[in-house]
Amino acid sequence: MKKGWECLETKEVFKAGDGKTVYIELYQDRVRTPKGNVLTYTKYHASDVVIVVPFIDRQTLLMIRQFRYPIGKVLLEFPAGHVENKEDPLDTAKRELEEETGYRARKVEYVYSYHPAVSRTRQSVHIFRATDLARASATKHDGGEQISMRKVTVKQLRQLITKRKVENAGTLIAYLLCCTMKTSSGRRR
Amino acid sequence: MKKGWECLETKEVFKAGDGKTVYIELYQDRVRTPKGNVLTYTKYHASDVVIVVPFIDRQTLLMIRQFRYPIGKVLLEFPAGHVENKEDPLDTAKRELEEETGYRARKVEYVYSYHPAVSRTRQSVHIFRATDLARASATKHDGGEQISMRKVTVKQLRQLITKRKVENAGTLIAYLLCCTMKTSSGRRR
Repeated sequence: MKKGWECLETKEVFKAGDGKTVYIELYQDRVRTPKGNVLTYTKYHASDVVIVVPFIDRQTLLMIRQFRYPIGKVLLEFPAGHVENKEDPLDTAKRELEEETGYRARKVEYVYSYHPAVSRTRQSVHIFRATDLARASATKHDGGEQISMRKVTVKQLRQLITKRKVENAGTLIAYLLCCTMKTSSGRRR
Repeated sequence: MKKGWECLETKEVFKAGDGKTVYIELYQDRVRTPKGNVLTYTKYHASDVVIVVPFIDRQTLLMIRQFRYPIGKVLLEFPAGHVENKEDPLDTAKRELEEETGYRARKVEYVYSYHPAVSRTRQSVHIFRATDLARASATKHDGGEQISMRKVTVKQLRQLITKRKVENAGTLIAYLLCCTMKTSSGRRR
C-alpha cells in the first residue's frame, strides 16, 4: 500500500495577505487515498511563524500581553511574528523581538520547529532562544497591535501554567522546550 | 482606552464540514481598534479538538502514527479528534481513544485547554489523561484515516522530542502537561 495520498486537483478558494505575509490561502483538493477513496480535503497555507523566548537572565523572561481579536482577550505570550517573504527565520526572530519589546539580543539560537495544525496546513512554527539582551530602541507595533511588556520569572510562568492561565499553544511549547528540556544543538532543518 | 476591538461587520466567505464537524468556516470582519483604525481581519471557526494521553502504565503511553495530508508525512501523535455537535469533550475523548486505538479507559481526567492559533481562531484544544485502560474493540477509522498504534515509553518520547522528531503541536503540549507537570485538579472551564 502506498503511504501518501494522490492529489488529483487543487483549487484556491480564498486568499488574504499584505504582500509581505500570507495570512491565509485556502485550498480545496480532490485527493485519492491509498485505499482508493476519493475525497475533498480543505487545507490552507500561511506564512511560517517564529517565536522568541527572550531570557533577561537565567531566571527571568521577557513576555508580552497582547489583545487577540479572534478570542476577544488579552493573552500572555512570547514575542512572535510571521516570516516575511524570503526572510531567514533567524532574522525574523531578531526583528520581531526588537519590534515588540525594544530589546536586541546578541545571541539568538534555533531551538525547534513544529506544525501548529497538522490536519489543515503545512505551516511551521520555529522557536528561538534569545540571550544577552540590551535595550535598543522604541517598540514598533503594527496598526492593529496592542502590546505591553512583562518581565516574568521562569517560576512564575510555571505557576501560571499549573493554574491553566497560559492559553497560547506556541507559548506553552516554547516554555517546554526552552525552560524544561535540552534539545540537541544544530541548525534549522 | 477600550481594550477590545469593535466588530463593524462580519462576512462568511467559505464553509466546509460534514454535518457533525466544522472543518473550517472562514470569515472576513471589518473591525475598529481602540486607536480608531478600521481594518479587515480574516478569522476562522472550526470545531474544538480533544487530545487524549493514554497511559498503559505509569511509564508507557499509547500513541498513533498517522499520515497527515497537508504535510505529506506520517507523524507520531496522541489520539485526537473533533468534538462533534454538542458532545461533551470528555465523551469525545473516550470515543476517539476507542475509535483510534481500540482501548477503553476506565478513568479519563481533564487536564488543560489552549488555543492552537490565537491570531486566526477562537478554536480550543482540550487535553485529557486516560488511565486504567482495557482492550475493548476493533479500531474504527474514517475513510481517510491511516493510523497505526505504537507503545512508547515516556522516556522514549522525551528522547524523540530532544532530537526534534515530534512535530505535532498538540502532542508536544500534551507531553508537557501530562508527563512533566502537575496541573491543578478541576473541571473544564
